[in-house]
Amino acid sequence: MGESVLTSGFSRVDGAMFVEGVPLERIAEAVGTPTYVYSAGRIREQYRRLESALMAALPDVPHRIHFSVKANSNLAVLRTLQELGAGVDIVSAGELFRAREAGFGGADVVFSGVGKTADELAQALAGKVLFINVESEGELLLVEQVAAEHGVVAPVTLRVNPEVTVESPHEYIRTGEKGHKFGIPYDDAEHVAMIAHALPHVQLVGLDMHIGSQIAVWEPYSSALTRLKTLLASLRAQGVNTLKWLDIGGGLAVTYDDEAPADVERFARGVAEAVRGLDVSIVLEPGRFLVAESGVLLARVLYRKRSGGKEYIITDAGMNDLVRPSHYQAYHRIDAVQDVGERVVADVVGPVCESGDFLALARDMPAVEPGDLLAVQTAGAYGFVMSSNYNSRPKPAEVLVEGDRFAVATERERLEDLVRLERAHLQWRSV
Amino acid sequence: MGESVLTSGFSRVDGAMFVEGVPLERIAEAVGTPTYVYSAGRIREQYRRLESALMAALPDVPHRIHFSVKANSNLAVLRTLQELGAGVDIVSAGELFRAREAGFGGADVVFSGVGKTADELAQALAGKVLFINVESEGELLLVEQVAAEHGVVAPVTLRVNPEVTVESPHEYIRTGEKGHKFGIPYDDAEHVAMIAHALPHVQLVGLDMHIGSQIAVWEPYSSALTRLKTLLASLRAQGVNTLKWLDIGGGLAVTYDDEAPADVERFARGVAEAVRGLDVSIVLEPGRFLVAESGVLLARVLYRKRSGGKEYIITDAGMNDLVRPSHYQAYHRIDAVQDVGERVVADVVGPVCESGDFLALARDMPAVEPGDLLAVQTAGAYGFVMSSNYNSRPKPAEVLVEGDRFAVATERERLEDLVRLERAHLQWRSV
Repeated sequence: MGESVLTSGFSRVDGAMFVEGVPLERIAEAVGTPTYVYSAGRIREQYRRLESALMAALPDVPHRIHFSVKANSNLAVLRTLQELGAGVDIVSAGELFRAREAGFGGADVVFSGVGKTADELAQALAGKVLFINVESEGELLLVEQVAAEHGVVAPVTLRVNPEVTVESPHEYIRTGEKGHKFGIPYDDAEHVAMIAHALPHVQLVGLDMHIGSQIAVWEPYSSALTRLKTLLASLRAQGVNTLKWLDIGGGLAVTYDDEAPADVERFARGVAEAVRGLDVSIVLEPGRFLVAESGVLLARVLYRKRSGGKEYIITDAGMNDLVRPSHYQAYHRIDAVQDVGERVVADVVGPVCESGDFLALARDMPAVEPGDLLAVQTAGAYGFVMSSNYNSRPKPAEVLVEGDRFAVATERERLEDLVRLERAHLQWRSV
Repeated sequence: MGESVLTSGFSRVDGAMFVEGVPLERIAEAVGTPTYVYSAGRIREQYRRLESALMAALPDVPHRIHFSVKANSNLAVLRTLQELGAGVDIVSAGELFRAREAGFGGADVVFSGVGKTADELAQALAGKVLFINVESEGELLLVEQVAAEHGVVAPVTLRVNPEVTVESPHEYIRTGEKGHKFGIPYDDAEHVAMIAHALPHVQLVGLDMHIGSQIAVWEPYSSALTRLKTLLASLRAQGVNTLKWLDIGGGLAVTYDDEAPADVERFARGVAEAVRGLDVSIVLEPGRFLVAESGVLLARVLYRKRSGGKEYIITDAGMNDLVRPSHYQAYHRIDAVQDVGERVVADVVGPVCESGDFLALARDMPAVEPGDLLAVQTAGAYGFVMSSNYNSRPKPAEVLVEGDRFAVATERERLEDLVRLERAHLQWRSV
């Protein structure tokens, strides 16, 4: 019996791909395709890897890992992380709702995002979140107003744009450069911080940064932290004595193809050196890092086709299920669930009616045939959360695997679900 | 009192934007934002424009307009078109379900798409669709098998790739060139047609083509039709006497910015000349053309911000609501609902936490302030249908306007809807 480990949590036994102890074939039979499958063990392993590195490097500095919910907001995934002691980083009322459903308390939540509405801020204050990452002067004044209306003092950190350049695979995931919508420009941050310090219904409890995504090296964090420390010192020198949190954001890289993953130990040592003697507690906001490699998108081959000198593998998973290849030109490795000897260079495409509906282009692939199963790898982050109903396609199911058992975490949508909020009989209102 | 017509269906009265007789401000108050608003009158006008041109040019040739549901699958929009006598072009079981809900009969439906499953084909046959646009030899054989299992004869057309090059604004919407996933390569089409002709549970009733989207000129249609006519003649010469439909597809251009719209009269005359004496009935599959200009996405400004020398207008509509700017780098005009004198060059961005979340970049805009309303124009096609719950954001509402009244066609999602299919208690299954 041949057995080989693919990435952690995934292996092949006699040519068949397993997630932990469960054959993917078994999940496809039971739940159908397309389906996202997550390994709970792999999520735990990744969390513990980061936590261990931080504990080793920062034994005396309080620190918290707040999972960035936007990467994967499935309740079962959130609960898996909650049980490990994680907090969450949320960006909307919807994510606050999900965090609560998954068992997170108010103090487990930090609230980020450039477009918080007054209503969302009110919900966050009512839920007693740990702090609100304020991204503009306008938002700061709105927080003050909402907090005053509710008779509370809002704990806020300022998200400062450290204006460092980070090499990321796609411009859409760079966030800490000059001239992006995120954060408060570095040169304005002190001014805005002093406003925050003076407002009666706001307490400035820290500083926050987020420099991007898929960062494998330490240097950009170091440059950005140096700027934040300068600001921190300057504010304290001016009597701002409430600063106790330093939120370093996320961005730790994972491996989709042959990229170097983040060196977590180097990262933790770097943070330790940077914050030594600062008298702050650290918050990290990893998203992709904790969940990307835990997930695959399981799909079935519908057709093979040859056209214009090219081979096509048509699957039942499309851009509505996983938009990253089309939207970011992102690379996802695609494996045959059951080993196939022959290979073919093919476009792997979905059933959606547009040319942009592909999972891979000109890819050296196992020569799968109709009926065969495919596993699209590293699909645990920004997969299901970005799915749509384009072409009136129901959203896929989500399954969690734990050892040799599995459970449906999200049921596949049915056709009736697609029109549930549409009104059969219009109720006209006159102007 | 000043009044000016913007595009048909939209006007300004005393500086305030109206959809037909309804102020957009009124809809925002009643339904909230972000909200898609469609003008029923504008949809009708566009349909009748095409229908009139066809009637004038093709008085003696039977022809049908089958709305391509993927452009806008809202039931109220579908019903508006159904009442005008339109048919539909569908690409999934979900769209078949919607077509039925909207009152279309089986014979009003043609079924396209590269990835039809056996189950979807069975549903289409049970629903007695007009015909199935078959896109590959593999699909043809599956149709035969499914039809045999159900004891019926399936009416099919072959979607032939005419392999003409069309200038389209984005590569993702070109579909009729060599080496795309769509259709049967022209050189293979006769071979596949003769297989279809020989199969006992398939009747080859016509030929189909679809050359792309946003086509403003006649020439590519002419080139493609010439190829289809050659094939038609060749098949008839070989005794295939069942060919009665010629499906010309869609692709008629609309105006987003300053593009020339499709010359519908020229198109109709071209079709008339091309099909003269052919003894076929014509099917057209317009999508965007019928609905794009009927819709706006109504959004509210949350914040203004200056960063890195750039101005930002942050709205409550994001890439999850309208993905076209981010996904296709598509241009949508954005107007202030209430006239604002001053102007500013700004990025118009949403609240979603990624740099790719924008509606417009470096755009000369009215200098709107927080609380002001914006109308993102030409949002009636590929708007709501591509929306997602990214960042756990509920999908927007959809509103239909008819004269001086309006109605909610789709309710705004609530937070509870986001987790409706997720299981609070996992039911584990062992392998």
